[in-house]
Amino acid sequence: MSKTRIVRVRERIDSENEAVASALRAELTRDGTILVNIMSSPGSGKTSMILATIAALRDRCRIGVIEADLDGTVDADKVTAVGIPAVQIETGGFCHVDAFMTRAALAELGSTELDMILLENVGNLICTAQSQTGAQINVAILSVPEGDDKPLKYPVMFRAVDVVLLNKIDYLQIAEFDVDAVRKRIRVLNPAAAVIPLSCRTGEGLDAWIAWLENAIRS
Amino acid sequence: MSKTRIVRVRERIDSENEAVASALRAELTRDGTILVNIMSSPGSGKTSMILATIAALRDRCRIGVIEADLDGTVDADKVTAVGIPAVQIETGGFCHVDAFMTRAALAELGSTELDMILLENVGNLICTAQSQTGAQINVAILSVPEGDDKPLKYPVMFRAVDVVLLNKIDYLQIAEFDVDAVRKRIRVLNPAAAVIPLSCRTGEGLDAWIAWLENAIRS
Repeated sequence: MSKTRIVRVRERIDSENEAVASALRAELTRDGTILVNIMSSPGSGKTSMILATIAALRDRCRIGVIEADLDGTVDADKVTAVGIPAVQIETGGFCHVDAFMTRAALAELGSTELDMILLENVGNLICTAQSQTGAQINVAILSVPEGDDKPLKYPVMFRAVDVVLLNKIDYLQIAEFDVDAVRKRIRVLNPAAAVIPLSCRTGEGLDAWIAWLENAIRS
Repeated sequence: MSKTRIVRVRERIDSENEAVASALRAELTRDGTILVNIMSSPGSGKTSMILATIAALRDRCRIGVIEADLDGTVDADKVTAVGIPAVQIETGGFCHVDAFMTRAALAELGSTELDMILLENVGNLICTAQSQTGAQINVAILSVPEGDDKPLKYPVMFRAVDVVLLNKIDYLQIAEFDVDAVRKRIRVLNPAAAVIPLSCRTGEGLDAWIAWLENAIRS
């Protein structure tokens, strides 16, 4: 009984959120700004990936960052430390970012002056995939230590994104993780999604991600 | 606005759930059955920890397992493969286990014939901590590759549990992870929580976890 009621309320709020997300996406595209929504479990490497992307592209475009966490400004502080404007959304107990929060953060950031905004969603492989933010590009990160069975257990996320970054491939030396099996499991759920193995620590594979991102922005 | 409304609905449903959880906890205690709720991010090692706990305690008590996932029976299959009764809750898109789901799964499992039931919650470091299941013991697993900043970013979880297992300490050889810093961060949030470093893969530290669990069951 409790479960059914939650779903009904969610559906109503989701449809309001989708309308806001859709409008936001149109505004961003009109203004020539790309919003990239980055989702993963806690500790998969979202912030490291954002810092690596900034390093690769900061000379070619004006970048801003929105960080979202239940609490604290740890991640936003890392971004401002490298000289990039960042806004922190403190969600309280809230488990994902919605389009209302994104709109407020974009206004705070002054998004019309920026070419690309990287949104680090709350560390959550479930709820984030169920709520649109207004982003034109949606990214999931799956890190090697999490295990190669994650597409089987969290299919909603892997269906929702344009690209999956397999991060921490330097851990393949000690983790049991079958990259080909993950590729196949993602392909079943989402044939159009790109899958890019990389390591933010060693830099391996980052060029493929940057090339994919630049191509996605152009198209 | 959207956010406020969600919180109001949640509060009402949470209070219903808390009443069910409280009744369930009393029934379990009356029946001499301990329910252990295990929470973590995806891929932190919940299933491995359950299998290690079964191996250590199966000769001393009758154990059952409840597995919860958005989809699939991967984890329950691993448990039944070692000859322990397991029930899988398929939550659909639902991001955590509540006491209503637990009650249904306990009935399916025949909990009155069991001494200890290990509940593997959905892989989620946020929502699971906000919903009581009826368990007498609540456990969080934080794995080394996730990073030592997680108590700062997910305080609700670290406040909600009786013990934190720092899993995958065999990854300390390549991960940057300060065990003492994590202990301090957890102590600030939850001075009563035990913190036990271990590796389900190498077996290091498992004896301390088993001793803690046996002591918690007795007290």
